[in-house]
Amino acid sequence: MDLTKMFLFLLTLLSIYHAKFGVFNPIQLLRQGSGAAGEYSDCLSWRLAVETNNLRDWRTVPESCAEYVADYMLGKQYRDDCDLVADAASDYAQSVKPTAGGDGKDVWVFDIDETTLSNIPYYNRSDVRFGALPRNGTKYYQWVAQGAAPPVPSVLRLYNTVLSLGFKTVILSASSDQFTKIRSVNLNNAGYNYNWERLIFKGEADRGISGSMFKSKIRTELVNEGFRIVGNIGDQYGDILGDNIGNRTFKVPNPMYYIG
Amino acid sequence: MDLTKMFLFLLTLLSIYHAKFGVFNPIQLLRQGSGAAGEYSDCLSWRLAVETNNLRDWRTVPESCAEYVADYMLGKQYRDDCDLVADAASDYAQSVKPTAGGDGKDVWVFDIDETTLSNIPYYNRSDVRFGALPRNGTKYYQWVAQGAAPPVPSVLRLYNTVLSLGFKTVILSASSDQFTKIRSVNLNNAGYNYNWERLIFKGEADRGISGSMFKSKIRTELVNEGFRIVGNIGDQYGDILGDNIGNRTFKVPNPMYYIG
Repeated sequence: MDLTKMFLFLLTLLSIYHAKFGVFNPIQLLRQGSGAAGEYSDCLSWRLAVETNNLRDWRTVPESCAEYVADYMLGKQYRDDCDLVADAASDYAQSVKPTAGGDGKDVWVFDIDETTLSNIPYYNRSDVRFGALPRNGTKYYQWVAQGAAPPVPSVLRLYNTVLSLGFKTVILSASSDQFTKIRSVNLNNAGYNYNWERLIFKGEADRGISGSMFKSKIRTELVNEGFRIVGNIGDQYGDILGDNIGNRTFKVPNPMYYIG
Repeated sequence: MDLTKMFLFLLTLLSIYHAKFGVFNPIQLLRQGSGAAGEYSDCLSWRLAVETNNLRDWRTVPESCAEYVADYMLGKQYRDDCDLVADAASDYAQSVKPTAGGDGKDVWVFDIDETTLSNIPYYNRSDVRFGALPRNGTKYYQWVAQGAAPPVPSVLRLYNTVLSLGFKTVILSASSDQFTKIRSVNLNNAGYNYNWERLIFKGEADRGISGSMFKSKIRTELVNEGFRIVGNIGDQYGDILGDNIGNRTFKVPNPMYYIG
């Protein structure tokens, strides 16, 4: 091609880079280590602080990280991050699988939202903006009532792996039990084929306690029934800290919202 | 400038982008969300899994992430990540500061290695490679014996903040007490001016238990003495899980090694 065409081609590539990385300052690029992610390094720090439970009780994604979180949740990194959690959990499950003909008391506990099921279609809405706008319970439960949440693919894969190894599963959510039926159908449609040992939501009697307290209470009840919690996976620290957390816990990424 | 010069200029910019991001595939770029970090996205996932305690008992940094971890530890992102942990901890400390004329029993617990002090000068050696080579206890303790570790600047800042707010500090390490004197001098030289309430290392009697068990034991002794552990900060989950972990815990990044 001639020089003009080459010029236009290079310009196009630069535009793609620009659109991709959002910066166009070679000096800045040279000065940053490759561990950084350009203008988003503050948001990487913020996300790490969220994922390690260093930041708690936060209400919305910082406006300066709204676009970053949207890109993360829709992009390859989130899927890769979920995959690695599921791989680590599968490796662990295989290393401790129940002996054949066990007593059926070895269970894995799975959270629902952002763990077995994804609410990305809801958080992707312009009036939600991946958590950059304040949580709106009414709108959120309208979405839940549609029963249309897709699975988190990595977690569905893990779920089937632990079942195939001979574990029982308990799906435990601190969301309201008024949607038990629709969420049960949603889980089935998403690939969790009604093959859980228990599906537990927060009922009227427990409205006064936090999600974290509720889950500790339920896990303790399970243990008192004779279940051994071998693995426990969720996207909130409230899922995996507290009482009877299980022999091993796994944290799925979620930079969109915090639940105590 | 004329078209030829413009062409060369664009080519230079592209080379910089290429050197920085290590990829030159516009299709791939278009397919990845900007939450990804190009060729290192697997290493970002690995680091997140380490920092969230999803991966445990790992022995070395995967060879494919050796360069990534080196770049991270020497670059802006690690410093930014530490800064945000310290900021979050300082905000918390200020929100719960002891009342004037308190009883002097409100303490913060600080770990040493990769928390108050940094071993980056050691891990940067070609025979250590930021944890990509197996841990060598002999070499490592030769480095410790030099007493030359610099502070983690963000943590030193936090340390001085909690002191200024009226808290006492306990520096608690599961490393051997045979270096107590030299590490004490090292901490002082690094800016922790002999102003801790306690400086505790693992003695002969506790050689048989893990670092995590040892720390749980010491924290329980502190609580039995009447101390209230208000904050607790370390780079390993063994520092911040277990018994009497404190009212709030903080995790400093460390993708170089795992201690159980």
